[in-house]
Amino acid sequence: MTQHDAVEIITAKRDRHELTDSQIDWVIANYTDGVVADEQMSSLAMAILLNGMNRREISRWTNAMIASGERMDFSTLSRPTSDKHSTGGVGDKITLPLAPLVAACGVAVPQLSGRGLGHTGGTLDKLEAIPGWRAALSNDEMMTQLEDIGAVICAAGTGLAPADKKLYALRDVTGTVEAIPLIASSIMSKKIAEGTGSLVLDVKVGTGAFMKDLDRARELAETMVSLGKDAGVHTVALLTDMSTPLGLTAGNAIEVAESVEVLAGGGPADVVELTVALAREMLAGAGVTDIDPADKLADGSAMDVWKAMIRAQDGDPDAPMARAREQHVVDAPASGVLTRLDAMAVGLASWRLGAGRAKQGDAVQDGAGVVWHARPGDEVTQGQPLFTLLTDEPERFDRALESLEGGYDIGDGAGFTPQALVIDRVS
Amino acid sequence: MTQHDAVEIITAKRDRHELTDSQIDWVIANYTDGVVADEQMSSLAMAILLNGMNRREISRWTNAMIASGERMDFSTLSRPTSDKHSTGGVGDKITLPLAPLVAACGVAVPQLSGRGLGHTGGTLDKLEAIPGWRAALSNDEMMTQLEDIGAVICAAGTGLAPADKKLYALRDVTGTVEAIPLIASSIMSKKIAEGTGSLVLDVKVGTGAFMKDLDRARELAETMVSLGKDAGVHTVALLTDMSTPLGLTAGNAIEVAESVEVLAGGGPADVVELTVALAREMLAGAGVTDIDPADKLADGSAMDVWKAMIRAQDGDPDAPMARAREQHVVDAPASGVLTRLDAMAVGLASWRLGAGRAKQGDAVQDGAGVVWHARPGDEVTQGQPLFTLLTDEPERFDRALESLEGGYDIGDGAGFTPQALVIDRVS
Repeated sequence: MTQHDAVEIITAKRDRHELTDSQIDWVIANYTDGVVADEQMSSLAMAILLNGMNRREISRWTNAMIASGERMDFSTLSRPTSDKHSTGGVGDKITLPLAPLVAACGVAVPQLSGRGLGHTGGTLDKLEAIPGWRAALSNDEMMTQLEDIGAVICAAGTGLAPADKKLYALRDVTGTVEAIPLIASSIMSKKIAEGTGSLVLDVKVGTGAFMKDLDRARELAETMVSLGKDAGVHTVALLTDMSTPLGLTAGNAIEVAESVEVLAGGGPADVVELTVALAREMLAGAGVTDIDPADKLADGSAMDVWKAMIRAQDGDPDAPMARAREQHVVDAPASGVLTRLDAMAVGLASWRLGAGRAKQGDAVQDGAGVVWHARPGDEVTQGQPLFTLLTDEPERFDRALESLEGGYDIGDGAGFTPQALVIDRVS
Repeated sequence: MTQHDAVEIITAKRDRHELTDSQIDWVIANYTDGVVADEQMSSLAMAILLNGMNRREISRWTNAMIASGERMDFSTLSRPTSDKHSTGGVGDKITLPLAPLVAACGVAVPQLSGRGLGHTGGTLDKLEAIPGWRAALSNDEMMTQLEDIGAVICAAGTGLAPADKKLYALRDVTGTVEAIPLIASSIMSKKIAEGTGSLVLDVKVGTGAFMKDLDRARELAETMVSLGKDAGVHTVALLTDMSTPLGLTAGNAIEVAESVEVLAGGGPADVVELTVALAREMLAGAGVTDIDPADKLADGSAMDVWKAMIRAQDGDPDAPMARAREQHVVDAPASGVLTRLDAMAVGLASWRLGAGRAKQGDAVQDGAGVVWHARPGDEVTQGQPLFTLLTDEPERFDRALESLEGGYDIGDGAGFTPQALVIDRVS
């Protein structure tokens, strides 16, 4: 590898030059090894955030992060693989019904997930509300489960893209999270290293999403799709609405329960719609176009995979889950039509009730969260329950109620048009 | 102090907001104390470099750095104080004759200096070529010497602006040196904390200077002058040429010898010109306008102060200094007029010969350096000595000769006009 110098690379990006392939390879490899110091990488990250990277630079950066660790290989499986990644939203439990649904259609889903931080929940935190369920699997356990059951949702091991793990933690404390080149390469390095054959990205847009604005969400989606293609992974992105939270629940156990309703053929219409839309994309990416995933929800086969998947990771899908010790009901202050329900307000309330964590390593409450009893477009009557707040610690109610203030509107419904859930598709 | 958070402050500057006084106070105090981590300060420094700070922010930033340490107080001295700061150049030995000259005119000069890093030499490195001379003085020794002799050149203690010391070292490794707000506040925080009553800034412009371009040098000068005024320190800046090195020598012992020539009433015309111009500004800043410093060079009184000043710090001004063990002469390759002598080329050659250090803590060679035997405008004859390269380690000659390649032009002199030494004055 050509020898470089951290200051040379930082000043190049600072002065709006393109980084060479060799500079990118060097800085990622040497950051992983500790030769490039955190304070050097953080000033480089800020220069990238403010001055950008072009597609070639982002692609090389992604490959260098992949090369910093191991790559998984599912080519020995008897079925094709497809995975999904969501950029994170409120009430976004879609992975839970989606992975077993796609597996029920014959495509294996190797879903490496993370824990939540801030107002969006983490898939692993939700599943851990199921008694006995464990997130950590060895690579061998993962392969066996994929072959036998077809779906696995587990914690990403430390071997995949270690450069990204280190950089992600650094960005979190240095104000450099919001750089599209760094977000795109972070997500795609893990997904490409994970070895999936095809990938569907659910890029959220709206108040409860990381990307508040459609143009930036589209830019992120396009960047990630092109990175996937460069790496030979069939990649499609859906831009989906996150101005309103998904379904009727945000929390851990309550989101698992809602997911099980969907797997049982019921559940909120929007959760079903997005689950099926993403399943179709995942199946198409894996070359399966003759199966309608909606049928597999209706006939119970997705539920069978779900139960097998939970049991394979020592969970009991039929055991009762934790319930919050305390609840507080917010009644509708007026009669009319619910015209707005703000995803960020609900996400913050759920987080403050104990469903999420303030910093890495904190515990979460399995039973905490928010249930809303109406969705935009629904009629409500003054005095009916509008929200149920759940927590083990009643002192948390006040701050949760504060987050909900101004987070919804009830009007006469004139001129109300529902926001489409799937806004656009990028391929 | 209002509580803040490092990420809040970084993202504010990243998103082009002004930092509040409270944010600036908090981040400097907490960086000094280690609460704000290096990787956070470096991403903030990059955001400042790329997005700038306004005058209020720079002024507050400077004051916060001063407040991080002690302030000196010379108000009990029987004479006024005046100091000079140069942004650094090649062959810039001006402090050596200037401090005793101004003292000989009745104004005390408390000059806290640094060591060299890179292609520009350090004043302390030069003086340490004098046998016995020591750079470290206690505050009491400094006061006594200022009262008795009127001039002191010594190392800055660790108590002045510790935030700046920490930040300066960080900027050096994170590509964030070249931010005018950070350069200006770094220089001015030390000079204001040092407690001088008036200050003259020698802002160098040209290939051998930190600022290559006149507009940026002027912006730096104006920023520093306004910071000085805000702090109640009478401050003036001269913009002076550093496309050509000063005098005829760059090194340590050889620059001391050249300075002594100036103090003896001789020496290169440009060194005399700049020394006298800066002395006039320093005297005027301290309210002394009836003395012509040129007289004090002619009558030997500046030389008397020099000898007393060196002796007070245990140096022997009459002892022979180290001479380099090896020399290599470069002859003029053609006859004609020397039309260009590049300061950076000469500075790099001197550095590579051992007069400067590659990293903090390295030793320098007292005898190493470059002597040039002509200045731009001088006629030279093919085969006459043009440069004499000096070092203790002859293996250094090759790389020093490389730096000189292309570093000078000999022509017929048609159209040659000498560059004015003092380009402008900012007050």
